[in-house]
Amino acid sequence: MKDQIQNANHKNLIHTDSFDYTTNMLSKKNVQIEKVITQLIDFQVAIPSWALGAGGTRFGRFGYGGEPSTLGEKIDDVGILHALTGSAGSISLHIPWDIPSDPSAIKERAASHGIIFDAVNSNTFQDQKGQRKSYKYGSLCNEDAAVREQAIAHNHEVIKIGESLGSKSITVWLADGSTFPGQASFRRTLDHTANSLKNIYSEMPTDWRMFIEYKPYEPNFYHTVIQDWGTSLMLATETGDRAHTLVDLGHHLPNTNIENIVSTLIYKGRLGGFHFNDSKYGDDDLTVGSIKPYQLFLIFNELVAGMENNTADNPPLAWMIDASHNVKDPLEDLLQSLDAILISYAQALLIDQEKLKNAQINHDVVACQEILHEAYRTDVRPLVAEARKRAGAAINPIDTYRDLKIRESLILKRGQHSQATGL
Amino acid sequence: MKDQIQNANHKNLIHTDSFDYTTNMLSKKNVQIEKVITQLIDFQVAIPSWALGAGGTRFGRFGYGGEPSTLGEKIDDVGILHALTGSAGSISLHIPWDIPSDPSAIKERAASHGIIFDAVNSNTFQDQKGQRKSYKYGSLCNEDAAVREQAIAHNHEVIKIGESLGSKSITVWLADGSTFPGQASFRRTLDHTANSLKNIYSEMPTDWRMFIEYKPYEPNFYHTVIQDWGTSLMLATETGDRAHTLVDLGHHLPNTNIENIVSTLIYKGRLGGFHFNDSKYGDDDLTVGSIKPYQLFLIFNELVAGMENNTADNPPLAWMIDASHNVKDPLEDLLQSLDAILISYAQALLIDQEKLKNAQINHDVVACQEILHEAYRTDVRPLVAEARKRAGAAINPIDTYRDLKIRESLILKRGQHSQATGL
Amino acid sequence: MKDQIQNANHKNLIHTDSFDYTTNMLSKKNVQIEKVITQLIDFQVAIPSWALGAGGTRFGRFGYGGEPSTLGEKIDDVGILHALTGSAGSISLHIPWDIPSDPSAIKERAASHGIIFDAVNSNTFQDQKGQRKSYKYGSLCNEDAAVREQAIAHNHEVIKIGESLGSKSITVWLADGSTFPGQASFRRTLDHTANSLKNIYSEMPTDWRMFIEYKPYEPNFYHTVIQDWGTSLMLATETGDRAHTLVDLGHHLPNTNIENIVSTLIYKGRLGGFHFNDSKYGDDDLTVGSIKPYQLFLIFNELVAGMENNTADNPPLAWMIDASHNVKDPLEDLLQSLDAILISYAQALLIDQEKLKNAQINHDVVACQEILHEAYRTDVRPLVAEARKRAGAAINPIDTYRDLKIRESLILKRGQHSQATGL
Amino acid sequence: MKDQIQNANHKNLIHTDSFDYTTNMLSKKNVQIEKVITQLIDFQVAIPSWALGAGGTRFGRFGYGGEPSTLGEKIDDVGILHALTGSAGSISLHIPWDIPSDPSAIKERAASHGIIFDAVNSNTFQDQKGQRKSYKYGSLCNEDAAVREQAIAHNHEVIKIGESLGSKSITVWLADGSTFPGQASFRRTLDHTANSLKNIYSEMPTDWRMFIEYKPYEPNFYHTVIQDWGTSLMLATETGDRAHTLVDLGHHLPNTNIENIVSTLIYKGRLGGFHFNDSKYGDDDLTVGSIKPYQLFLIFNELVAGMENNTADNPPLAWMIDASHNVKDPLEDLLQSLDAILISYAQALLIDQEKLKNAQINHDVVACQEILHEAYRTDVRPLVAEARKRAGAAINPIDTYRDLKIRESLILKRGQHSQATGL
Repeated sequence: MKDQIQNANHKNLIHTDSFDYTTNMLSKKNVQIEKVITQLIDFQVAIPSWALGAGGTRFGRFGYGGEPSTLGEKIDDVGILHALTGSAGSISLHIPWDIPSDPSAIKERAASHGIIFDAVNSNTFQDQKGQRKSYKYGSLCNEDAAVREQAIAHNHEVIKIGESLGSKSITVWLADGSTFPGQASFRRTLDHTANSLKNIYSEMPTDWRMFIEYKPYEPNFYHTVIQDWGTSLMLATETGDRAHTLVDLGHHLPNTNIENIVSTLIYKGRLGGFHFNDSKYGDDDLTVGSIKPYQLFLIFNELVAGMENNTADNPPLAWMIDASHNVKDPLEDLLQSLDAILISYAQALLIDQEKLKNAQINHDVVACQEILHEAYRTDVRPLVAEARKRAGAAINPIDTYRDLKIRESLILKRGQHSQATGL
Repeated sequence: MKDQIQNANHKNLIHTDSFDYTTNMLSKKNVQIEKVITQLIDFQVAIPSWALGAGGTRFGRFGYGGEPSTLGEKIDDVGILHALTGSAGSISLHIPWDIPSDPSAIKERAASHGIIFDAVNSNTFQDQKGQRKSYKYGSLCNEDAAVREQAIAHNHEVIKIGESLGSKSITVWLADGSTFPGQASFRRTLDHTANSLKNIYSEMPTDWRMFIEYKPYEPNFYHTVIQDWGTSLMLATETGDRAHTLVDLGHHLPNTNIENIVSTLIYKGRLGGFHFNDSKYGDDDLTVGSIKPYQLFLIFNELVAGMENNTADNPPLAWMIDASHNVKDPLEDLLQSLDAILISYAQALLIDQEKLKNAQINHDVVACQEILHEAYRTDVRPLVAEARKRAGAAINPIDTYRDLKIRESLILKRGQHSQATGL
Repeated sequence: MKDQIQNANHKNLIHTDSFDYTTNMLSKKNVQIEKVITQLIDFQVAIPSWALGAGGTRFGRFGYGGEPSTLGEKIDDVGILHALTGSAGSISLHIPWDIPSDPSAIKERAASHGIIFDAVNSNTFQDQKGQRKSYKYGSLCNEDAAVREQAIAHNHEVIKIGESLGSKSITVWLADGSTFPGQASFRRTLDHTANSLKNIYSEMPTDWRMFIEYKPYEPNFYHTVIQDWGTSLMLATETGDRAHTLVDLGHHLPNTNIENIVSTLIYKGRLGGFHFNDSKYGDDDLTVGSIKPYQLFLIFNELVAGMENNTADNPPLAWMIDASHNVKDPLEDLLQSLDAILISYAQALLIDQEKLKNAQINHDVVACQEILHEAYRTDVRPLVAEARKRAGAAINPIDTYRDLKIRESLILKRGQHSQATGL
Repeated sequence: MKDQIQNANHKNLIHTDSFDYTTNMLSKKNVQIEKVITQLIDFQVAIPSWALGAGGTRFGRFGYGGEPSTLGEKIDDVGILHALTGSAGSISLHIPWDIPSDPSAIKERAASHGIIFDAVNSNTFQDQKGQRKSYKYGSLCNEDAAVREQAIAHNHEVIKIGESLGSKSITVWLADGSTFPGQASFRRTLDHTANSLKNIYSEMPTDWRMFIEYKPYEPNFYHTVIQDWGTSLMLATETGDRAHTLVDLGHHLPNTNIENIVSTLIYKGRLGGFHFNDSKYGDDDLTVGSIKPYQLFLIFNELVAGMENNTADNPPLAWMIDASHNVKDPLEDLLQSLDAILISYAQALLIDQEKLKNAQINHDVVACQEILHEAYRTDVRPLVAEARKRAGAAINPIDTYRDLKIRESLILKRGQHSQATGL
């Protein structure tokens, strides 16, 4: 596939001109092009194992041909994405959907694609066949101690599986909460959750980190135990130094200033992970950058500034795409997301931080906006393409994916009706 | 069951006192108690056939024992609700989930419970097994004429089935829309939809009505063709005199003033149907009255005023509960919804409309609020209980349902793992 | 006025019957009526000095006759409210609008009405005439140290004024933030704010408390430094043991579960104050209970449970009404708010907490809802009226206010065009 | 000033290179550059007379030096904007703030700047000094016929003033509504409004158009008579052929799909005017393009497609900026808005509509998104700058405005504390 990609790149006659022009223009504005390109090459995003098939809603699901039906096939799909983009260098597994029967074989298969294992994800929001206790009324928060113990044990097991694959972190997303006023005691469920998290943390290897995700609603429609970043931060702080907050772009109430939250977590040294997607209404799980690209840019501005000036000792961030693919080819959808992420990152890298700081200090609001727009309005696609090219990936991943007829091959191999586990 | 209910009623020692006190107090305020009770007895709400089993979300579903697995069993369940409340006198079918193999047998079974058939509902938001064309990219709005024709034909068939059962209306809810900017042409999809609706309407019996539902989002997460009441009214007006707008409480953007919409539709003579539920975030489909009971009261104020002063010739409203039951016994959930509806209706009937009108004309805002609160803060449960009692139903439906161990019987008969069709 | 109120009460022929019936019914349900009434009598809400005249919007303001134009007159107005309700026993001052020239005279005037001084409020969101530095770009968060110092000094002064009147707490509400992306550094403005608050706290008397208010937006329309409870809690924790979070009902994004926030703050022992109002869209500052009375009840449920089971050592809560009166007589508006507060409180006191806890532990969701509705649907107005009657106040405050022609007297005394300071 | 601008342009050494590159690149993609530039030159946006001074919120206002205090000075300010951008060729007046004492002198002054008079705006949301009847409880919707008559007469007068200046349309924005449930009868206030609009329309010159604006809330916080586009369209249709709906970007509930509304109005031939601004929370009135530039692009996509394919006979659109300038120099703020509008327009003009239509028809969702992103991610600033340059305006308006020290001159001439009328 590497060769095919190189062939495709060779046919691209326009990239060199665009890149030269962009380099030339940005150099006049004192941008260090080579540094930016290196940063773009280095940026790696995890692909979740559950996002490689078609997603659905409660109203139904429309399948997509050639979906991967085994963990090995999922890894192969991430391999395709990584070959095409050079920036999908890891996979994030979901247990119990992805329990490897032979961890070392799986590790080898991943290594053959240049892929490592990012955070593992536990699942206590569904009941698995034959499960002793039900999570219908919550897991780590449940009033019934036996349910909590089962959920804790599951998390311990997930960590063990992660260890066998080289993961170094666990993401805990809890659907726990209630659907009607009165159904749950806010304080008791919160207290149970705090204790359960401490229990999980206590058996975590000392080089591991725990990421605590928050979400205001869905699947519970009245109250969620960890409803916002404030609750997550509070719990992370109580749990331990290696417990952090994970921000998922879609997990906020309407009109939330997410970049302010990101910045506050960086300020406290507690930002641990980041789930990319986009949305217009709720947790819509759309392609990154498809609805609010400027918001993504503003968030990247905080992330870049925070990483470059990490005074509060935040860990290296666990980046992941967490989207659902209802109407697009899942692999094409992920290629569009990876592209949008790198474009936003590149734009944020172009912001003249020193100039911005001065304008802020002088309360020159007009200049502050001009500085952001100067970066945002720049066409950075040549920079991103150059980074991909240098990494041996495709200048234009989607065109290449289509030219190489990859989906057609997958359907031939796996059939029109294979089905991936996932939502 | 009638006898068991009467027995239960006889054991209720407190109702007579409460009803006497309430009658006494309200009479002093010139309320015509007997008229109110008659109105409460007459009020009938349709139960949708798809709401008798456990609902779920895209994250999973937790089943409930004893769910009805055939249309006959669904009718029996509505029969239970009607026996207990006296106000669930009709069922609203969903095609293709509820196609009767023997319509007259089904009609008889319903009649034995005192139940008739309300609006029928078509389904073009899912693909059925073996379906020729897919609705993945829309049905009545689809760019492909063959898909539109298939969807129109389905609606014609739904009307035919409805005719065989005595229904007099069809509710068209469309998921049609798009999930990403650019995916669809707003104008072309709207135009296709307008023409498709006209086509369906043209073959509708002349004593039938069409209800056009609207919804801002879900399952499409960018654009919905019929996104709001304005679009629905526009289409209904173009379609014909017997096309009306249907309002579902959960189908609105955050903070919408729904009572104003209801009132405007009444003003134009185009309000056709009403779907009850409650929600905090989106189309949460929660028990009626569980989140915003005051909003429900304000809506009923418009409905009562509109029905009593129907200058624009609105048809009799098609009332239906459209909720989903994820964490409660579906029948108990529906009993709570029916109770909440009658309570709101009773409160609205207590509003002194003449006094309110005078206060409005005099811009006495404080008095306007006092008049509404006077009605809303009254404990009307004795009136609702009396209406049920006189209708031969249970003074306290939920207690009676539990005392009679109805769920236990259903589980014995149908098993712990029977599953109803639905969402 | 006391006598006039007693006379009015004597004319009320219906209260005794209602109260007897309510007592009788609730006693059968094991409610300790006398305890409830005592709790209602004891409940005192502060009236803010800036809410006694007509409010306005950026589009204009319509004045109201007889507005108080001096601090003394404002205190007299609160005196009227307290005489009529028995529950408006304190006033919350706003500096610089209410600087007393003679504190002991002002204290005496308040004492003559039975009124004490609740939390004092600083104002760094407006520029006062002749002010050296402008707050246009923020106060405690400002990039300019001189602005921050001026704002800190103002807070110190406010505390001094409060001390002279017997206040024991200061409420800090900051408009600080930015209106455009890029305008401000989130981290620097947050850090400046944290340091400024510590500075103010350090000079606060040791028996004082600081309440840190949060608000997502307005008057800044992009970012607010203290945008949510999480930020407030974080700052309060860093600032000191006597720093607490203040919750204003109107300061939340759409669909926020506020009762969960209240509960979490109680869980952490950091809930300090509470501002009552109601809203449909944003910080609408409407009459308490006029839009979402059930939400208010759910919040009171948490407050009652928290106060009765205060394991985390929260201070006694500072209750205040923070509303704006654009279209109603301000005093009538406040009477309606006080009534709504007591009604919600009474309903919450009726919840059978033990039964609720059992239903929660057994995951009997239907029962949980029934228990809440049992309390909420009870007509508690006779209890609230009885509490007022026993406190020597009016059974029906609004009727009495109108019968006594109080507004007419105020207009006679103060004129049709007097104007109160405030928003 | 023309000369100064030319001098500034000559110093710009980078524009020619950028423009050549852009022309070259886009030509390869079959864009007709010259056509695009002509369209950009022709695009004219009205400046509202009330947006030339500092705006404020209900919490206060921070003035800006050199504000225009007469209508003549306001016209001069628009002249500055037009000289710098070539695209601010008209002014929209607000009555009674801008009643010209000598219309022909005012027309001449405007003509000297190349400025004409766009839609006139009536004001019935505030009381003017000495006004006979108050609009506190509404104007065209008021229960009191005398208030309605006064408001209608005011609109007639506004039209007369507009005629004297050459305007051809009136924009009616009504604050009419209610702040509390029960305060107003939805149906009566709607009916009064419908009749009042018909009355105003009946005396409108036959070559005039009426634009009916809608808004969900503020300054009323419960109900607004014309709350959404559906109500506006309904009223416009009833009123007459020359009555149209006006869309203000900030007048929508959270998450509204505005581009769908725009498209539907175009479909019906009823889109009349458009007010540009941006917002994150409500009607924030921020600089165009400062918060959601992609949404603006999507709207322009509909506007461009609608104008090029105007099958429903929409009138030429009345474009206006309707923003408020709380923290920026008002003129710089407007320059940023004008720039953002032209950038969005240019991006929308680059969309390959034919290719997009084909992708839509083939349900190639990925391609649809790529086509939009291809246009949106292009750096179109060289095209916009070239259009300005050719129109004799500034390549870079803000830099030129600052270099020419225009604000400093205005302050010298008008003083630091002059104050413009407006919000």
